[in-house]
Amino acid sequence: MSGLGWVRGELSKLEGFLKIKPLYFDVDTGEFVWLDTRLIPFEEVYRRTRDYRRVAEAIKTMEIRGAPAIGVSAAFAMALAALNSKSGSIEGLMEELLEAKNVLASTRPTAYNLFWALERVMARAREESRRGYDRVVNGVLDEALRMYLEDIKTNVEIGRAGSRLVEDNMRILTHCNTGALATAGFGTALGVVRYAWYEGKKVTVITTETRPVLQGARLNVWELRKEGIPFKLIVDNAAALVLARGMADMVLVGADRIIFTGHTANKIGTLQIAIASKHYNKPFYVVAPTSTIQPTWNPQEIVIEERSSEEVTRVMGRMEITLQDIEVYNPSFDITPPQLITAIVTEKGIVEKPFEENIPKTLK
Amino acid sequence: MSGLGWVRGELSKLEGFLKIKPLYFDVDTGEFVWLDTRLIPFEEVYRRTRDYRRVAEAIKTMEIRGAPAIGVSAAFAMALAALNSKSGSIEGLMEELLEAKNVLASTRPTAYNLFWALERVMARAREESRRGYDRVVNGVLDEALRMYLEDIKTNVEIGRAGSRLVEDNMRILTHCNTGALATAGFGTALGVVRYAWYEGKKVTVITTETRPVLQGARLNVWELRKEGIPFKLIVDNAAALVLARGMADMVLVGADRIIFTGHTANKIGTLQIAIASKHYNKPFYVVAPTSTIQPTWNPQEIVIEERSSEEVTRVMGRMEITLQDIEVYNPSFDITPPQLITAIVTEKGIVEKPFEENIPKTLK
Repeated sequence: MSGLGWVRGELSKLEGFLKIKPLYFDVDTGEFVWLDTRLIPFEEVYRRTRDYRRVAEAIKTMEIRGAPAIGVSAAFAMALAALNSKSGSIEGLMEELLEAKNVLASTRPTAYNLFWALERVMARAREESRRGYDRVVNGVLDEALRMYLEDIKTNVEIGRAGSRLVEDNMRILTHCNTGALATAGFGTALGVVRYAWYEGKKVTVITTETRPVLQGARLNVWELRKEGIPFKLIVDNAAALVLARGMADMVLVGADRIIFTGHTANKIGTLQIAIASKHYNKPFYVVAPTSTIQPTWNPQEIVIEERSSEEVTRVMGRMEITLQDIEVYNPSFDITPPQLITAIVTEKGIVEKPFEENIPKTLK
Repeated sequence: MSGLGWVRGELSKLEGFLKIKPLYFDVDTGEFVWLDTRLIPFEEVYRRTRDYRRVAEAIKTMEIRGAPAIGVSAAFAMALAALNSKSGSIEGLMEELLEAKNVLASTRPTAYNLFWALERVMARAREESRRGYDRVVNGVLDEALRMYLEDIKTNVEIGRAGSRLVEDNMRILTHCNTGALATAGFGTALGVVRYAWYEGKKVTVITTETRPVLQGARLNVWELRKEGIPFKLIVDNAAALVLARGMADMVLVGADRIIFTGHTANKIGTLQIAIASKHYNKPFYVVAPTSTIQPTWNPQEIVIEERSSEEVTRVMGRMEITLQDIEVYNPSFDITPPQLITAIVTEKGIVEKPFEENIPKTLK
């Protein structure tokens, strides 16, 4: 793992934005390391592995969650597959990478960043494969590290762009966790809040608890407390009342997938907050890196993941809140149509309407 | 407790509608008896008392909940106060009743049925007070028993009226528990479902879990399972997606307070379902007895209860889902404006718009 000093150098430049380090590659041990978000806010446990399948499992079970975090973790998992390959031949290595890609691609179907990351790593591997075995291995790791650093930088850029929308003393309603814990660091929607806070704006966050997995109650509470940003926790049911009573000035949410039309898949419950925001005339912003954008015009291409009934009937995997043998409909995401979205904040700036014109431009 | 045979006679006529008996007055022992809804669906524990303060506590802690159930229980609590009074004089008795009324009135501020029931019992007591001590005691008990039987009959009438809106194979989205467990028996919104089911209509219920107290996940699941009515449980966040995907044909909810304008206070989360129903053009019905109607034109008179932060941060009073020392905004109800309500189903029939004309008529 020599020759990776540049990563430390780049990271040190970002230090002020990395109060929370949700995941990284340990260049000394060759391990991928991540904070197990299932234990937050009660315990801060980092897990480590050299096995890409373990990373796939961590994504599936939501130890790692949040579209950008999933993407970067999948890239590192590909690097682990390359680093620990015993194939000996370029053909064998490429086959193993393809196998790893398939395993990782089958973990979560909605987050577009996952597929984007896997494609990008594979493209690099294919490119290097003409140059020799070691070039592939090093190239895949290099690409993953680049994506890791890019994600953090991208988030800071998103924060900078989005913060222009945030005025002093604004109260921001948010849903699900889109902070450091959803990315390689810093965050998207919560990154905007963080950036505004760092700029000295006195913002207050109203966060939903975000059932069933409680990313709001667990992860946002933990992140906001760490930053000292004032916040209020509400049940998901209270979002419309908060808007009706004028207790929030704007809504900021993340995205798991955005398409050229502006249709945005995000955590289940986003849609009803968007509808309520429209009803009460409050700005509703989607905040995400352009790696979340799937270049398609067809909302039918957005796959909505449905997760186990147990996720609903057993809170945090432990406490049964009802009978276990019942029928549960547990979609993890919903799709917010463009009419309900005020604008989309990306690292390339704020994307205004018409989305079908301006979203494709961000990928150029 | 002699001379109360008529109650048994009346009850036997309603037997077919009382598969679940959530509360009653035990005329043999002089005790008020209720099912502790906090333990449902895991345990079916009936609690008993002769102490009206214990009933007040049960309402406060939500062992008993649901506006009609609260109203009837408060009436029985007044009967307990009268029956167990040691005052000896009519003046002393009336003072004790006033004290009991104040204690009971301070349990939950939003459910209008509570105040309606207390007023009605006090009016009867005042009326009887000209006729002697025993007449007051017996009168208060008689009034409570009448209100108990009336509530069940009223719910069956509501069911009959509402069932006309329900077609075979309809899928009904509901929020919070409005079944037997929210009333003296049978239920309001869930009573409509029950009535339609008894008529042989193949309905399916989609119930939210209804955070923070989980009346949907716990109580609706238990009641629907008991009836054999097919259902699906969703998190509150999934309501809009269910409507967007055309998975529900109508929405039925209860009410804790309805005023002459049609503004309806109901369980937190009702408002955002109503907004989403309007957005997707799905009928949204409020189902409640006329005892829920407060004769006022001023929405400002609706008091919204805010409950403890612990109700949110500690699921079912036991499991901590996040840090305990954080700021929580925990309103128990929200107010749905008349524009979002298709019609209101009462025991007097379906109240159509204009509400400001037709709601007052129901009280005549």
